[in-house]
Amino acid sequence: MIEKLIQKIKKTEAPIVAGLDPMLAYIPQPILKSAFDEYGETLEGAAQAVWQFNKGIIDAVCDLIPAVKPQIAMYEQFGIPGLEAYKRTVDYCKEKDLVVIGDIKRGDIGSTSAAYAAGHLGRVQVGSRSYAPFDEDFATVNPYLGTDGIKPFVDVCREYDKGLFILVKTSNPSSGEFQDRLVDGRPLYEWVGEKVDGWGRDHMGSQYSYIGAVVGATYPEMGKRLRALMPRTFFLVPGYGAQGARGSDLASFFNEDGLGAIVNSSRGIIAAYKQEAYAAFGEDGYAQASRKAVEDMAADIRQALG
Amino acid sequence: MIEKLIQKIKKTEAPIVAGLDPMLAYIPQPILKSAFDEYGETLEGAAQAVWQFNKGIIDAVCDLIPAVKPQIAMYEQFGIPGLEAYKRTVDYCKEKDLVVIGDIKRGDIGSTSAAYAAGHLGRVQVGSRSYAPFDEDFATVNPYLGTDGIKPFVDVCREYDKGLFILVKTSNPSSGEFQDRLVDGRPLYEWVGEKVDGWGRDHMGSQYSYIGAVVGATYPEMGKRLRALMPRTFFLVPGYGAQGARGSDLASFFNEDGLGAIVNSSRGIIAAYKQEAYAAFGEDGYAQASRKAVEDMAADIRQALG
Repeated sequence: MIEKLIQKIKKTEAPIVAGLDPMLAYIPQPILKSAFDEYGETLEGAAQAVWQFNKGIIDAVCDLIPAVKPQIAMYEQFGIPGLEAYKRTVDYCKEKDLVVIGDIKRGDIGSTSAAYAAGHLGRVQVGSRSYAPFDEDFATVNPYLGTDGIKPFVDVCREYDKGLFILVKTSNPSSGEFQDRLVDGRPLYEWVGEKVDGWGRDHMGSQYSYIGAVVGATYPEMGKRLRALMPRTFFLVPGYGAQGARGSDLASFFNEDGLGAIVNSSRGIIAAYKQEAYAAFGEDGYAQASRKAVEDMAADIRQALG
Repeated sequence: MIEKLIQKIKKTEAPIVAGLDPMLAYIPQPILKSAFDEYGETLEGAAQAVWQFNKGIIDAVCDLIPAVKPQIAMYEQFGIPGLEAYKRTVDYCKEKDLVVIGDIKRGDIGSTSAAYAAGHLGRVQVGSRSYAPFDEDFATVNPYLGTDGIKPFVDVCREYDKGLFILVKTSNPSSGEFQDRLVDGRPLYEWVGEKVDGWGRDHMGSQYSYIGAVVGATYPEMGKRLRALMPRTFFLVPGYGAQGARGSDLASFFNEDGLGAIVNSSRGIIAAYKQEAYAAFGEDGYAQASRKAVEDMAADIRQALG
């Protein structure tokens, strides 16, 4: 799956992942009204609005980008109907040949991680039959529990040609509280990065491992250091746009081959029409505003990469 | 909610939480057969088997224990039908007046943690109405992203009288890889523990905070140290039974008032009938085997606490 991701990045010339993290506040009134008219102001109504909103954006941007990253929390908050909308979104993106990174940040003790891995990336056995319940292409994973919480995910990725992005240095303001603490003179995130590199070494595509890392765009110096430490690790880089990072911050996350990273923007793409720069599109043109925001982001990154 | 948990621990004289982590391999053949006859070997069939299995155990043990801890991964692996069985389990346990600890180990950047917190512990707004989609009483949370990933959970707990158990030192074999690394001469888990203590200080019940910690039974020396560092923090202690810890390992996790900890056993309770000690109950008596295992565990802990 890392090969498909790289191939699509080359084809689109846009190392961009659109974060499908819908909040009801982002959704244009006509979509909300139609969903509430049909299902009422219910969890089902919210889920329907989310799905319709996503579909519009996916249709508008799917030829421009290699991948999407639905954040499952934004669906899970609406309970079972929300999770149905998540699954519908995953399936639809795959129909459109987009690589789907499930931003699930799961991670637990071994037997429990195995269940998450089966449910999200692999298959689960029921009697004599097996099923792929969520079937994302990649998943994000939390490393706090160490190797035995990661290994079941890695095993499933090998078996089913999937991939991971493991949290190394996250984009949020307080990520340094634990991640930056010095252990034997080096920050914890570097130790985690080295482990990720180690887990990935035996799980290579042709050039990059399918065991990747999450490294926040908001910390470019740390990204540079991790890039040097982990040359074969693909980085998922969140934090562009609404979280503050710009194209000029991004060069250090890439290798000299122009690969090695894919940059996420969520609000900056999906709620583009609410920004002044794209306000002219209006509510009805929200999906076209997203398309223009993707084009602008791609140009910004291409310029940064020179 | 921490007050309810403490009151129920006192009443049952059993600081025990039954981990409702069903695997199909634990489920007696008659229950599987009945579920598959009705729904086929499908995700719906698996979910029905899980739910019927759980219901039998809940009915058999609900008067003996204060709390249950369903591990959401074991449901999520069966996709949407599995998550429906999770919700049904949560609701049924609450009907039986059990405190429900959702073992979800979520944790993300602030806005995303806010969505998880709303969906699992609080309420989510849909137009003019609001809903409590999963509505567990407590949730487990991963601290790797620091304060801004935790605060939204804490805020929701305060608003809705819920609680957290934040991962500090987990019970699995490789938990030490990152958690035990020394930072300024002290292991990371102690720094995390101090943060949890800090987050909890302004969120107290009468005696203990509703911001608790996960501290694995498999590391009793570390539990002792954390107990001293965090006197007002309630500990959720996994690792008893199948993971190797015994009653004699547990005393150091409790305060002198005999409180301050609740010990989880999953397989040891729910799959008791598969152990030699309880084999006489047979498949048909699986729920009664679970009841006997709870009684034995309670006696083991009471003896350890003297």
